[in-house]
Amino acid sequence: MLGVGEMGSLHAKLLSTKIRGASVTVVSDPEQGKARQVADAVGARVEVDPFSAIDAQDVDAVVIASPGPAHEAQVMACLERGKAVLCEKPLTVEADASYRIAKAEDALGKSLVQVGFMRRFDPEYVKLRQMIVSEELGPPLMLHLVHRNVAGPEGFTSEMALTSAVVHEADTVRFLLGEEINAVTVHRGTATSRAGPGVSDPMLVLFETESGRLADVEIFIRTGVAYEVRTELVAENGTARIGLGANVVTSGPTNRWGGLLASGFVERFGPAYEEELRCWVRAVGTGPPTGASAWDGYVAQAVCEAGLEALRTGGRAEVALLERPSASSRVAPA
Amino acid sequence: MLGVGEMGSLHAKLLSTKIRGASVTVVSDPEQGKARQVADAVGARVEVDPFSAIDAQDVDAVVIASPGPAHEAQVMACLERGKAVLCEKPLTVEADASYRIAKAEDALGKSLVQVGFMRRFDPEYVKLRQMIVSEELGPPLMLHLVHRNVAGPEGFTSEMALTSAVVHEADTVRFLLGEEINAVTVHRGTATSRAGPGVSDPMLVLFETESGRLADVEIFIRTGVAYEVRTELVAENGTARIGLGANVVTSGPTNRWGGLLASGFVERFGPAYEEELRCWVRAVGTGPPTGASAWDGYVAQAVCEAGLEALRTGGRAEVALLERPSASSRVAPA
Amino acid sequence: MLGVGEMGSLHAKLLSTKIRGASVTVVSDPEQGKARQVADAVGARVEVDPFSAIDAQDVDAVVIASPGPAHEAQVMACLERGKAVLCEKPLTVEADASYRIAKAEDALGKSLVQVGFMRRFDPEYVKLRQMIVSEELGPPLMLHLVHRNVAGPEGFTSEMALTSAVVHEADTVRFLLGEEINAVTVHRGTATSRAGPGVSDPMLVLFETESGRLADVEIFIRTGVAYEVRTELVAENGTARIGLGANVVTSGPTNRWGGLLASGFVERFGPAYEEELRCWVRAVGTGPPTGASAWDGYVAQAVCEAGLEALRTGGRAEVALLERPSASSRVAPA
Amino acid sequence: MLGVGEMGSLHAKLLSTKIRGASVTVVSDPEQGKARQVADAVGARVEVDPFSAIDAQDVDAVVIASPGPAHEAQVMACLERGKAVLCEKPLTVEADASYRIAKAEDALGKSLVQVGFMRRFDPEYVKLRQMIVSEELGPPLMLHLVHRNVAGPEGFTSEMALTSAVVHEADTVRFLLGEEINAVTVHRGTATSRAGPGVSDPMLVLFETESGRLADVEIFIRTGVAYEVRTELVAENGTARIGLGANVVTSGPTNRWGGLLASGFVERFGPAYEEELRCWVRAVGTGPPTGASAWDGYVAQAVCEAGLEALRTGGRAEVALLERPSASSRVAPA
Repeated sequence: MLGVGEMGSLHAKLLSTKIRGASVTVVSDPEQGKARQVADAVGARVEVDPFSAIDAQDVDAVVIASPGPAHEAQVMACLERGKAVLCEKPLTVEADASYRIAKAEDALGKSLVQVGFMRRFDPEYVKLRQMIVSEELGPPLMLHLVHRNVAGPEGFTSEMALTSAVVHEADTVRFLLGEEINAVTVHRGTATSRAGPGVSDPMLVLFETESGRLADVEIFIRTGVAYEVRTELVAENGTARIGLGANVVTSGPTNRWGGLLASGFVERFGPAYEEELRCWVRAVGTGPPTGASAWDGYVAQAVCEAGLEALRTGGRAEVALLERPSASSRVAPA
Repeated sequence: MLGVGEMGSLHAKLLSTKIRGASVTVVSDPEQGKARQVADAVGARVEVDPFSAIDAQDVDAVVIASPGPAHEAQVMACLERGKAVLCEKPLTVEADASYRIAKAEDALGKSLVQVGFMRRFDPEYVKLRQMIVSEELGPPLMLHLVHRNVAGPEGFTSEMALTSAVVHEADTVRFLLGEEINAVTVHRGTATSRAGPGVSDPMLVLFETESGRLADVEIFIRTGVAYEVRTELVAENGTARIGLGANVVTSGPTNRWGGLLASGFVERFGPAYEEELRCWVRAVGTGPPTGASAWDGYVAQAVCEAGLEALRTGGRAEVALLERPSASSRVAPA
Repeated sequence: MLGVGEMGSLHAKLLSTKIRGASVTVVSDPEQGKARQVADAVGARVEVDPFSAIDAQDVDAVVIASPGPAHEAQVMACLERGKAVLCEKPLTVEADASYRIAKAEDALGKSLVQVGFMRRFDPEYVKLRQMIVSEELGPPLMLHLVHRNVAGPEGFTSEMALTSAVVHEADTVRFLLGEEINAVTVHRGTATSRAGPGVSDPMLVLFETESGRLADVEIFIRTGVAYEVRTELVAENGTARIGLGANVVTSGPTNRWGGLLASGFVERFGPAYEEELRCWVRAVGTGPPTGASAWDGYVAQAVCEAGLEALRTGGRAEVALLERPSASSRVAPA
Repeated sequence: MLGVGEMGSLHAKLLSTKIRGASVTVVSDPEQGKARQVADAVGARVEVDPFSAIDAQDVDAVVIASPGPAHEAQVMACLERGKAVLCEKPLTVEADASYRIAKAEDALGKSLVQVGFMRRFDPEYVKLRQMIVSEELGPPLMLHLVHRNVAGPEGFTSEMALTSAVVHEADTVRFLLGEEINAVTVHRGTATSRAGPGVSDPMLVLFETESGRLADVEIFIRTGVAYEVRTELVAENGTARIGLGANVVTSGPTNRWGGLLASGFVERFGPAYEEELRCWVRAVGTGPPTGASAWDGYVAQAVCEAGLEALRTGGRAEVALLERPSASSRVAPA
């Protein structure tokens, strides 16, 4: 386990208590105290150097939850040693670096990298994708996506909203539609008073896919309300909505009926993280991972870079993808 | 307009502003000031004596919203003069008196009486009844009903919960199923702390119909939450629920999604009262009223009396109906 | 009643049976047989010439449901005679003509024109607007709108989708936000196979208001499913959705729970048409109408013209409004 | 694993693929072929004699999914050898036998038995129980429960509906309210035409708890629609509903909006079975199980016996519980 901040600690705890066939043997984090604490909790030892950790004989597979800038070297080290790796998003900060990873993996002729887009393991997204693949409602035509957070950290910019939050929606669009995003436009609307000067929140992001489908995303970081993530599919013969969170419905205590919204991503997607780890651990040593690939990680970053350009120019930015390495699976094969 | 308390004032206002073909010409109420005030507002004159009001030449039809004990004599006076009458529930306080009205009307050979069970004009109940009549979901098998108020007036007893609130559910069961209720059982459960000593609230009331169908009613007067009236039909090939109040759904302002519940019966059933008056006015002079009949009013009271007996004994009380006058329409003809 | 096609017949029937204070005295339609039939049904006489009908002494107010190209002359004739007029949308086919009407009305110094945007009388839109005006969820930031039809008439083009359907959403945006639309962009996405060659369906229309708010509209004419019109408000402290149609919920007859969607606009907005007429009739002779004004009718057409330009160019089209006549009420005064 | 019918096979598969810390070592079933097949699939060996299987040195804990009549001897054998046991419901066919188990366990001074009421591990029931324990909506007053199946096996009687299906609701009532059921009444209503002669389906079952709370259960085996299990809590300050299944909502393919209902208990409660096993495996060797106890299993059977009496007599049957063994935990400790 490389990096034991919020995500790394969550992964370590899940791996050591809930995931069949996995044990955390080595923990590494620049903050030694934190590393020691997590290692003790899960019965692991600490390695100060992340590359020694990757090298270790009792390490079959690596989870990377370190800060983004550290990812490239760590993932590459895993590839060199032929070890499976689950890397939290972003795969790398720059799209180019992600592409180098995809190429290196391709040269190995072996899929070793999974990127942590956990929504692909959430039952609702899985169901929606099944509906698309089975054409239960006919071919997909359009998507409407909503991504709302309660609040952003201090200093959270419009750019970060794209790279940290909208990136999930970009992967969702690709996962659901099974095709690439060709262009991005970002519309800055009226900002909430909670947004600082110069920050656009909410925004409306428009994706166009290679076949010409449209997907619009409301990204709203500072709702002050809840973590609310919804997707609506518009298909040839009907539409479908997920993310309604309607399993427990109350009347009262005030004069309202309704349900509770999630407070954050751990509450909403906790079980998806768990399932992601379960599938990944099962695949280690037995076959390619079933989650997002290095290519998916690369494309996500390329879309983010186009999004940042669109935000800056106020216009439409095209996503120029490099050639897909031959062994890379296409997005979300059915 | 006889009686201008809450219901009478509402009716007078609706009649004079919203109902095509109607004008309020005479108002009568023991409280002269109140009568004057309402009369002025709707352009009517005041008659002190309700029977003079009924007699008046410029009165074609009478709305009775006076206290229950005054109803029998006032309805009978209308029948004697051949004038159409819309009488708020209860038709009379004692079932016997209601039966006398049904007999008197039968002797006239003319349907002149409508009882104010306004739910029969609410679009959701009408739709549910259509689903039953059309057997869209197959024949009906069972009903679950919920009747919740925010609070009861001071001194509101368990008996009053039956005669004022459950009586609407009794009429609903008859309206929906199109058959009579044969027996009533009342179960007192654990009472809310808001109920005074000796008052059972909520209660579970069980109706059995002549064909053997069951209908259970949760009656809960002091919820402290809202006015919430729901009905669920269990039918041979499916079930249907009404009263969910789900037209406007919000997320927030707290971390909840949901809708607003009605604060009271005027908010929930205001349009039904309006439609009730519209249909009744249209029927005056042209044909029998389409709402609840004198027979319906009688049966409602007979069911209430059985309910009171069931409450007292803790057991099952049968509803013994007198013979239906030949001209009385059966309940809720399709 | 000028014009007795689908809308005119509906209005005539509602006016003569449901609207207090109104009677239809004269009917005019180029199809004489149709005019005769409707006139007979509502107890009116036929005038062949629409201007004679407007002139008639027993005509206090005029409902125009004739084809769009006839509107300008008919509305102008009403203004010349000082008669109140309810004109179905579009007020005129060209925005310029609508502006001439707004100017003529302004010169009269009297509001006589109401345009038939009936959604302003639908309880859900009224409630949503109240939430905005009261700032119950804080100031509005963004709107998401969905407008789906079952099918379009043969030969129904993308342009007609804008002028016949999206025009309602344009008025909705103005009604809800209380400000003008400044620019329109139309995105053509992947078309349903039900759309003919060259027809874009669905499309995503993006409105920008004068204060910079965004409103996106999914317009989808040939869903093959139902008439489904929803609006979601994104506000500073929460969000709200209307148009869910969730009052009757069934389980079955198949293995699904849910509700019925409207089959068309009469089913969905019938009561709104009724309320629109009721309010308009009440206002005749007593004050300015409470519905959409001539100015609103003009702006709707100007927005449509910008939408058509945006559709043609694939880019963003600005809405250039002429100066608002001094007496014209601003959009949707609170 | 004793017994590898539908439930046993499911448990064996979950244990060997999804549950951390468990492996299936021995399988036993009178049908040797079936036993062999499951054993091969999970890497276990077959023991013909269930008691030899219980005895085996490489067996730490036993899952009993054999037919009900075999349970008593098998559970007792586990107790004698001090091995943890997860016994599918019913704990035993007769309440007396369950009581003997509870006494035997009490004499051991050690909680070794868990009964397979898996709903206690379903997130919605857990949430509802938390709401009750935390008094989020105030103290509970009443429960409404609905239990619907698509169809029953041939020859499925009204009695079986009580012992196979309503027994889950009895445990749910005890789990949620944390108190015993004192009396049961069973009302036979109008039967669906799908029910054979003499079979009552649906029925309304009424539970009364020791503190006087009411819980009504609609049990309907042959809906022809879906597996639909809902619970509504009526509490002092509000009400709450679970089981709505509202996570994916579609419009279309017909003119309806809504969601899919579960086809059966594995679809609805699969994750609960998994969580049940996960918690149970974790508890083996480390502490008492957190699921339903032997006492809970005994009470469930005692309530069933009262239910059968109530069904036979048409009246109210009291639940006479034997003295609770001192070490038995009370129902559902908070």
